[in-house]
Amino acid sequence: MSLDADRASLPVGVFDSGLGGLTVLKEIHKVLPSENLIYFGDTARVPYGNKSAATIIRYSREIAEFLIARDVKAIVVACNTASSYALDALRGMTDIPVLGVIDPAVRSLTQKAPRKSTAGLIATKSTIASHAYDAALERHRGDQFLVSRACPLLVPLIEEGYAESQAADLILRDYLGPMVERGVEYLLLGCTHYPLIAQAILRLYPHLKLIDSAEETAAELKNLLADRGALRSGTKGSVELYVSDMTESMRALKELFFEGAVDRFEIAHIGEQ
Amino acid sequence: MSLDADRASLPVGVFDSGLGGLTVLKEIHKVLPSENLIYFGDTARVPYGNKSAATIIRYSREIAEFLIARDVKAIVVACNTASSYALDALRGMTDIPVLGVIDPAVRSLTQKAPRKSTAGLIATKSTIASHAYDAALERHRGDQFLVSRACPLLVPLIEEGYAESQAADLILRDYLGPMVERGVEYLLLGCTHYPLIAQAILRLYPHLKLIDSAEETAAELKNLLADRGALRSGTKGSVELYVSDMTESMRALKELFFEGAVDRFEIAHIGEQ
Repeated sequence: MSLDADRASLPVGVFDSGLGGLTVLKEIHKVLPSENLIYFGDTARVPYGNKSAATIIRYSREIAEFLIARDVKAIVVACNTASSYALDALRGMTDIPVLGVIDPAVRSLTQKAPRKSTAGLIATKSTIASHAYDAALERHRGDQFLVSRACPLLVPLIEEGYAESQAADLILRDYLGPMVERGVEYLLLGCTHYPLIAQAILRLYPHLKLIDSAEETAAELKNLLADRGALRSGTKGSVELYVSDMTESMRALKELFFEGAVDRFEIAHIGEQ
Repeated sequence: MSLDADRASLPVGVFDSGLGGLTVLKEIHKVLPSENLIYFGDTARVPYGNKSAATIIRYSREIAEFLIARDVKAIVVACNTASSYALDALRGMTDIPVLGVIDPAVRSLTQKAPRKSTAGLIATKSTIASHAYDAALERHRGDQFLVSRACPLLVPLIEEGYAESQAADLILRDYLGPMVERGVEYLLLGCTHYPLIAQAILRLYPHLKLIDSAEETAAELKNLLADRGALRSGTKGSVELYVSDMTESMRALKELFFEGAVDRFEIAHIGEQ
């Protein structure tokens, strides 16, 4: 095997604060079915979305150490909150490429949304507070204007099976009504859970065009691996899931976000956790 | 000073997974205004209510070590989930008395609710899964029958200011409707957040009689300290709050649960966290 072929056979590491990042893993598995995938979900400390930058960075570093020790060829930060705060810290730890979910989504927005239009962003409190999407918009020279709204109730509503409910509709109208009144047409789904409430959003506001990081991130990962000659081809890749805590509800969430069999789904303790 | 007077001047330690336990602290401060109080909220890993027994016990032990190192004369576990799983583990660590919030509430239920009646319990998923309330009912020789319901959306609704909203009403009807149909009259509020949604519950179901652990636990702590000659009297006690993470939303939650000035409110890192 050549050096490149050796490297190509290494797994891709993907992580999230919990199990929501499985929506990104699912898309990667669809676009790159031959890749071996290792996922880590920090279910013992989930959620990150209300926590401080310092804590989010510390937890993300511990997870990155776990993935680096498993010799991954790339790390995908499949968590908007961790992507908002920890990318620089992780890139300082390793030469392995580290890909977040924010830049792919913002690049897609700049390509699709009309120039000078007002776009919407919904995300966790910490992601909104980080202004990471504004910074990404600047990096990609987008001239769209962003109106953002922290939507902390959407994750629990989705996890509890209330995505399609009258209560969720009321809360979605609270969150999105003012944006829609300001003329928003493109809406960035800035949290990995949100694709699971997309249908409810479109039922209430059918004119909205949703941008979901999962697809964009999977496409960008494919390009990144191709550029480095590190794409694995041939047989179907394996999917291994590790979590820092496991309960019955976590098993149910795994099915909600990533249906069906995986090669491994078990507890792994990381860092100081 | 006598030995007893020495011990009486030591602080009482109180802890919770986050800031909800401040509803218990507030009650203790009201009933025992001369006591020095040290509170620890594990805001870097909150919530505990969806996590496993092993994880909840590990976190609780780390917090107990923090409090023991501060020479507390008693530990109040102001978190139903930690009280459900960790009391035995904590009692194995120390001779300091450890008081949970479940026994005081259940004792009150056995005294108030009619014999053989059906009482309701609402709590987190992990608390319900532990059957800790059933075990306490047996310890107190209560012959009431418990119907329980995990209510994972109530904490986020309360924390996001949705306790009095049409959405919360819909969700409360989902959670409580079936209990009320089964003839429940006494309802145990099995989570420290729930006193903040009590008014909405009583607006929907005015016949319910709510049992809140905070009052019962404060009364039991008073008896426990009195029995040991360890009550502090005289000048107003100090209130110190420590958290494992701090953000703007956590400062707002502190005000929601414990209004006004405290002597200290700062970050403290514990155990392996």
